[in-house]
Amino acid sequence: MAKLQSLFSMRHLLVLSLALNVSLILRIIYDSQLDLFFYKYPHQGQISNLHTHNKPRLLISSSFSNSSSSSTCEDHHQPPPKNNNRVINLDHGDPRVYEAFWRETGEKTTIRIAGWQSMSYFSDVSNVCWFLEPEFAEEVVRLHRVVGNAVTEDRHLVVGTGSSQLFLAALYALSPTHSPQPISVVSASPYYSMRDVEMQSYPSMTDYQKSGLYKWGGDADKFDKSGPYIELVTSPNNPDGCVRRSVLNRSEGLLVHDLAYYWPQYTPISSPSNHDLTLFTLSKTTGHAGMRIGWALVKDKEVAKKMTKFIELNTIGVSKDSQLRAAKVLRAVSDSCELQGGGESFFQFSHKIMSDRWKQLREAVQRSNGFFSVPTFSPSFCTFFNQNLEPHPAFVWLKCERNVEDCESFLRGHNILTRSGTHFGVSQQYVRISMLDTDENFMHFLHRLSTINFR
Amino acid sequence: MAKLQSLFSMRHLLVLSLALNVSLILRIIYDSQLDLFFYKYPHQGQISNLHTHNKPRLLISSSFSNSSSSSTCEDHHQPPPKNNNRVINLDHGDPRVYEAFWRETGEKTTIRIAGWQSMSYFSDVSNVCWFLEPEFAEEVVRLHRVVGNAVTEDRHLVVGTGSSQLFLAALYALSPTHSPQPISVVSASPYYSMRDVEMQSYPSMTDYQKSGLYKWGGDADKFDKSGPYIELVTSPNNPDGCVRRSVLNRSEGLLVHDLAYYWPQYTPISSPSNHDLTLFTLSKTTGHAGMRIGWALVKDKEVAKKMTKFIELNTIGVSKDSQLRAAKVLRAVSDSCELQGGGESFFQFSHKIMSDRWKQLREAVQRSNGFFSVPTFSPSFCTFFNQNLEPHPAFVWLKCERNVEDCESFLRGHNILTRSGTHFGVSQQYVRISMLDTDENFMHFLHRLSTINFR
Repeated sequence: MAKLQSLFSMRHLLVLSLALNVSLILRIIYDSQLDLFFYKYPHQGQISNLHTHNKPRLLISSSFSNSSSSSTCEDHHQPPPKNNNRVINLDHGDPRVYEAFWRETGEKTTIRIAGWQSMSYFSDVSNVCWFLEPEFAEEVVRLHRVVGNAVTEDRHLVVGTGSSQLFLAALYALSPTHSPQPISVVSASPYYSMRDVEMQSYPSMTDYQKSGLYKWGGDADKFDKSGPYIELVTSPNNPDGCVRRSVLNRSEGLLVHDLAYYWPQYTPISSPSNHDLTLFTLSKTTGHAGMRIGWALVKDKEVAKKMTKFIELNTIGVSKDSQLRAAKVLRAVSDSCELQGGGESFFQFSHKIMSDRWKQLREAVQRSNGFFSVPTFSPSFCTFFNQNLEPHPAFVWLKCERNVEDCESFLRGHNILTRSGTHFGVSQQYVRISMLDTDENFMHFLHRLSTINFR
Repeated sequence: MAKLQSLFSMRHLLVLSLALNVSLILRIIYDSQLDLFFYKYPHQGQISNLHTHNKPRLLISSSFSNSSSSSTCEDHHQPPPKNNNRVINLDHGDPRVYEAFWRETGEKTTIRIAGWQSMSYFSDVSNVCWFLEPEFAEEVVRLHRVVGNAVTEDRHLVVGTGSSQLFLAALYALSPTHSPQPISVVSASPYYSMRDVEMQSYPSMTDYQKSGLYKWGGDADKFDKSGPYIELVTSPNNPDGCVRRSVLNRSEGLLVHDLAYYWPQYTPISSPSNHDLTLFTLSKTTGHAGMRIGWALVKDKEVAKKMTKFIELNTIGVSKDSQLRAAKVLRAVSDSCELQGGGESFFQFSHKIMSDRWKQLREAVQRSNGFFSVPTFSPSFCTFFNQNLEPHPAFVWLKCERNVEDCESFLRGHNILTRSGTHFGVSQQYVRISMLDTDENFMHFLHRLSTINFR
């Protein structure tokens, strides 16, 4: 009887225990699904939550219906449809090309910021750049060391809302304060430029405020004014991908080096850059344009102070959220290079994509039988990959060789939007085409090129 | 025997099942602790991770040792120490006062952004402001509806890197493009200003670029030039907390309303503001200064377009990360007002803190026996709280009444840093003192006042 009782209670215990097992397993499965759901649709909870509220009665244009934000759920493996009416916009340089890499990193690069964190204006009051997040600064220095593309010793780091803000901060900091005339700002053509003063470019950014401190002075090769000037050196250059040096070597020249594309996926790293004032941007390094994070390496403390002052007057600092997220992303890039467990590093991944795209593009250009041409680049030794490599610029500087005078209009006729050479101070036979768009758009573009009848 | 076997196997099963229970329970506990750990120390994993890497050899000033960033772990309930040598800085308006509310919200306001999200420059290409995140726009409109402090119907919303950038964008957008002379920018004194042109203020922000488009024109009350002008109206006013209207009512005037402090914790909400161009900032609304998020409500589409263009040329948009985080924070504020489950809404919390601080400050001023004075404000009806209430400005506009001519120097002698009235275009008998600092600093300040010997 006692045995039976014991057996009975043991059976009960077993049933109870199994039930507990089931409930615990279900709990774990539910939690993982919730995590997965949040990972896949992080704003879903918010959106459904929102739908329970009354909608505002009328509203602020059509902003809430037709959003392209976070629309990163497209299928990258879809074959390009045969629809030639679809407009392929490769005019801007929206860097969507590396999304697949970041999807693979999963939780490692997911940032969590609690509501009470990062509330203060200040990040580090002991630093010249008081709004610079120390974590971000540390990762910038580490990445330059890992890649070997910039000297960071004896430099002041200034963070900016993208490198655009740092470009303006540099002009402000380098301009003489009490000069009766604004200082001239020059760059060798083709430069990052537009005809239309209202669009983002070196001349428009320099002149849109009609500043009395600095003024666009045009092509550096044609600059013949005496006295101080600021020369912008973009290397590799936007739009043509060429490695550049200062063309004016006068004692009164102040140099700003824009090295946005001096990363291993775009160009062989020859040596650590070592200039007075150098600009970098996350947009081109890792593809995170939406963060609006750039940085400057500045030799002279007074220049760094004035750049910081500019950003203080302009925006009272730079988003802490984006600096913290940028730190996480840069850490993942350095980790992928230093702590490889057989996986591909970020630069191996991005170099392979750029190399594949350029190969496919050159094949398409070859099939045009001389209708199009693209620049060729000599291979050179890359200290990062430790081998001779060809450059793979972020933009193609395409030329229409035959009777087509206006290459932009010609391609627009085939629903391909590009940017004319005239926007960069050269002939309209040239166009600039972004190589950084999504896989889907790039495949559409190649397919579209293949349908053009070259007669 | 069969029974024994069955009993034996059942015992085994039970042991196995219990072992499974224990392991599942441990797994759940471990997961929760990990969550808690991440919630409490979200960067801890990163920091310990970092320490495994080689430190950069030499570095970019002293930025990595002495950070004040995210130093939000102080004990708010500590009694103020009796150390009169500690410098209390109430010069700037760092809004740390609401941190306790945000700590209470926990996971509800914690944002998660995966590495692959928000990479594009673009948020909503169908909107005038193409870099405006729809989620953020929706929450701004909702909050204004909930609070009743601004008309959002028939307005365009422009997001900025703080309201500073929007102030500059507004000047750019309202200035005539082809005028030979810059347009005058005026404001009634005392205004948000400094003697030192290098510090953040209306005059310095207006003039630091020496723009040919606009120029600081001084006190609106003394402005006697004919022709077009831009008048800045800050209401409630910084520094004196007064409700303001435009003082110049000429047909050629263009108005910019800075309503950073038109929220229920600072001033009774009389009616929804309904102006041509109104600026708001998250820094003062919820205390999230580190996000650098502001917004403008703009009636004229062309003005909204030009403001967007300014931000495009200035910083190519506004951090998406901060916009998404701001949306989450604003949603929590509206939820706390609309979906109350007996809890305190954000504005009940913040109004109570401001009311308590002002009460304690007035008591301290009273104990000075006429040595100090502070403005008194008449109560008025607040449509949000549905009762008559006194204003509780974000700054105290304190006056030294007796023989003290320079109030800032007098307080500095007691290690209290404030901002002199001379910085706002008035007498040095006045100082501006921030009421938005941490509880700890505010308590230190009251204690320090109590130690001054008023003879």
